[in-house]
Amino acid sequence: MTQYEQLADEIHALIHSGSLRVGDRLPSVRQSSERRQLSQSTVFQAYYLLESRGLIEARPRSGYYVRPRVPAPLQRPKTSRPSPRPHGVAINDLVVALLNQPHGSQVVPLGSAFLDPTLFPVDRLARSLGTAMRRLAPEKLIEELATGQLRLRQQISQRYAADGIHAGVDEIIITNGAMDALNLSLQALTQPGDLVLLEAPTFYAPLQAIERLKLRALQLPTSPSDGVSLESVEAALAAGEVKVCWFMPSFQNPLGALMPDEKKKSLADLLARYQVPLIEDDVYRDLYFGPRKPRPVKAFDRDGWVIHCASFSKTLAPGYRVGWACAGRWTRDIERLKVMSSLSASIPSQAAISDYLAQGGYDLHLRRLRQTLLHHRALMVDAIAESFPADTKVTQPEGGYFLWVELSRRIDALELMRSAMAAGVSLTPGPLFSADRRFAHCIRLNYCSTSADKVVRGTHTLGKLVHRMLDKT
Amino acid sequence: MTQYEQLADEIHALIHSGSLRVGDRLPSVRQSSERRQLSQSTVFQAYYLLESRGLIEARPRSGYYVRPRVPAPLQRPKTSRPSPRPHGVAINDLVVALLNQPHGSQVVPLGSAFLDPTLFPVDRLARSLGTAMRRLAPEKLIEELATGQLRLRQQISQRYAADGIHAGVDEIIITNGAMDALNLSLQALTQPGDLVLLEAPTFYAPLQAIERLKLRALQLPTSPSDGVSLESVEAALAAGEVKVCWFMPSFQNPLGALMPDEKKKSLADLLARYQVPLIEDDVYRDLYFGPRKPRPVKAFDRDGWVIHCASFSKTLAPGYRVGWACAGRWTRDIERLKVMSSLSASIPSQAAISDYLAQGGYDLHLRRLRQTLLHHRALMVDAIAESFPADTKVTQPEGGYFLWVELSRRIDALELMRSAMAAGVSLTPGPLFSADRRFAHCIRLNYCSTSADKVVRGTHTLGKLVHRMLDKT
Repeated sequence: MTQYEQLADEIHALIHSGSLRVGDRLPSVRQSSERRQLSQSTVFQAYYLLESRGLIEARPRSGYYVRPRVPAPLQRPKTSRPSPRPHGVAINDLVVALLNQPHGSQVVPLGSAFLDPTLFPVDRLARSLGTAMRRLAPEKLIEELATGQLRLRQQISQRYAADGIHAGVDEIIITNGAMDALNLSLQALTQPGDLVLLEAPTFYAPLQAIERLKLRALQLPTSPSDGVSLESVEAALAAGEVKVCWFMPSFQNPLGALMPDEKKKSLADLLARYQVPLIEDDVYRDLYFGPRKPRPVKAFDRDGWVIHCASFSKTLAPGYRVGWACAGRWTRDIERLKVMSSLSASIPSQAAISDYLAQGGYDLHLRRLRQTLLHHRALMVDAIAESFPADTKVTQPEGGYFLWVELSRRIDALELMRSAMAAGVSLTPGPLFSADRRFAHCIRLNYCSTSADKVVRGTHTLGKLVHRMLDKT
Repeated sequence: MTQYEQLADEIHALIHSGSLRVGDRLPSVRQSSERRQLSQSTVFQAYYLLESRGLIEARPRSGYYVRPRVPAPLQRPKTSRPSPRPHGVAINDLVVALLNQPHGSQVVPLGSAFLDPTLFPVDRLARSLGTAMRRLAPEKLIEELATGQLRLRQQISQRYAADGIHAGVDEIIITNGAMDALNLSLQALTQPGDLVLLEAPTFYAPLQAIERLKLRALQLPTSPSDGVSLESVEAALAAGEVKVCWFMPSFQNPLGALMPDEKKKSLADLLARYQVPLIEDDVYRDLYFGPRKPRPVKAFDRDGWVIHCASFSKTLAPGYRVGWACAGRWTRDIERLKVMSSLSASIPSQAAISDYLAQGGYDLHLRRLRQTLLHHRALMVDAIAESFPADTKVTQPEGGYFLWVELSRRIDALELMRSAMAAGVSLTPGPLFSADRRFAHCIRLNYCSTSADKVVRGTHTLGKLVHRMLDKT
């Protein structure tokens, strides 16, 4: 047991025994550190752990407090059991119909794919835009279009180095958001008819890409805690037909699953052994709640089988459309496809993000953002426990901003969505995350798309609707 | 004959007779307008016409002057005669190899696809970036991603209206540059094996897209003056196999051909009759030298068969990556494909361009840009006439920034390119513009990629190299 786990357990015991009561303020990190002769970072990690256990909460500019008594805890969803056969995919009409739902500013956007935009340093980025572009030599507007701006690639390369990953600037291709990187990767790796491994449930973007490129999908059993089943991956790879995997090993959308580092290493080894590439969708990893930043599968990739795709859209600069692929052996193929399809990502967006990163403060911003997310997660989990039926199952992800809620099988998520919209709350229905329309009784909720009170209010509204639907059946 | 043509002819006669001599300054537009009781715009148009005939030249902030004696005029290239059979395409390796040639800042970039970036209002755009984004409500960072920002679409719609085209904001999809719009359009309209009509020579992007999407190309005879042969288009359409046309009817790249409005109308009628869509690549039309802005084929499209694609990259904001499709009956299909592939164009780029347009001055900027282009065209045509062999044929496009040069058939453009690179000058070789590697003795030159003196010097260097190559053979 590490020092911070020990400290966390001690405090846990104090809360359990009643020595620390609801609403009590914990000693500040500095006080604890001095009293117990521990480093401040150890104390921080302990507090994080307690926070993720739902025992304490951070209040901005005030400190850590023992949380109000949590309602009877809900169960977690179990590992999924998708169809064992590959599927063609026809999901687009559903995705488009659902994403195009009209929703005014009055709607509580629990179905949003985005964070509350006020959580981002929009003013500082706006300043960076102006200053970076005034300083930019005009010829830079037409140079480095294919690969992306060198300075930004250097900064990304340095961030990889901090994760213990050697990624040279020549391996990094700047794209129009991570979505562009992911789609170009799949396109570079496949021919119509090829088989792609996915998680179940899976983010709908790979399903849409698979439909568009006329590929086949095989969804694998996936645990809400540690991600896709490696046994299933290996069985599929051993069958010899898999062309590529597209997984989200850190804070998977929609489950929030986090594959532990050890499991990621085993996955990397499997891929190298079977020589099958992985498209690693890694847009949420910076939004971890635990004491340590998880590593990506790419960190364990020695032979270039992992194409690591990420962006700044979820963490810093939504709407700027700056993402990248660190593309291993497919770097030149993907770069070529990119130049052919859209030439380049926006130069001003790249320059602004680069200027912002150079000024420092990104990691501080991320730390604050993670605190807010964790706080909101607790609020929504509590609100679900308070207002949903007792047989509801809900994830408690260690990062990201989605909860996956498994309702009674008597609930139809699409019907719930329609009633919820009428009541001014949006949600994302489960069938969107499946090649064969499973998860009909599941929903995905975004716990940080708007203010805390709206999140709680919206969640309570959903809980009432679920009860009402069950009463009727 | 219009008033301005009459005025132009009078001045032409004065120059011809020697009454106006080389270096003489013409009366200012205002003086001429007052003396002759003509509107200033009529005088402007007359001066434009004389400029495009190579008789006078504008000197910035000084006025119009009779030009130095032009060398013996070179012939224009004739209408192309491409292969009459459809082709699969395998051009990518060549394109990538050529576009990836290393070239330092010492190289005179006559092979560039871009204008000299100092010609653009980079500082004003940088200010627009800062102010627009400081004013932007944060929620706009995650709204209007699918279609593009409403305000910018309104401004584009207004510019269409000024061209006599009704294009509602709902028909306009903002994309990541015109390249994105063009590629999404082709993707939305075709299945592998489909036949696409192209010009000959053609811009290489459609060739690359055709290769990537596994389509077939049929290149049609194209005149350097008025564009693709409508007889050939009709014959191909009548044969019943054509799925889509991809043409550039205004200042075609690389020929610079301008299809007259009447011919554009006939093309629109043909498309409607055969119910075959046209992807109209229209990125150069604002760069016209004539007295009137040409209209796009889209202006004559009554039934939505034309997908009009354009951008701000060639005219205002290179590197910002903001283009659009006005997509007629395929609007929703293309929007859907866009959302799936890269979600959205950069919000800051859109906001900055929108702010710039709202402040006014775009049309003034375009007018100045056109004057510079026209001046550079004359310089390069003269430099070719002075230094290239007498049997050289060269276009004199009425807009855009490319010359197409047809050399002796004993010259191999790829070999010339290599010698030129060694001598510090780049060029684009003809085979890049053909599905079957024709135009081996042709080159495309950019007359406005750098300063006037470098353009002249680079052209003279090429002339010497051509002479040397002919001496050797």
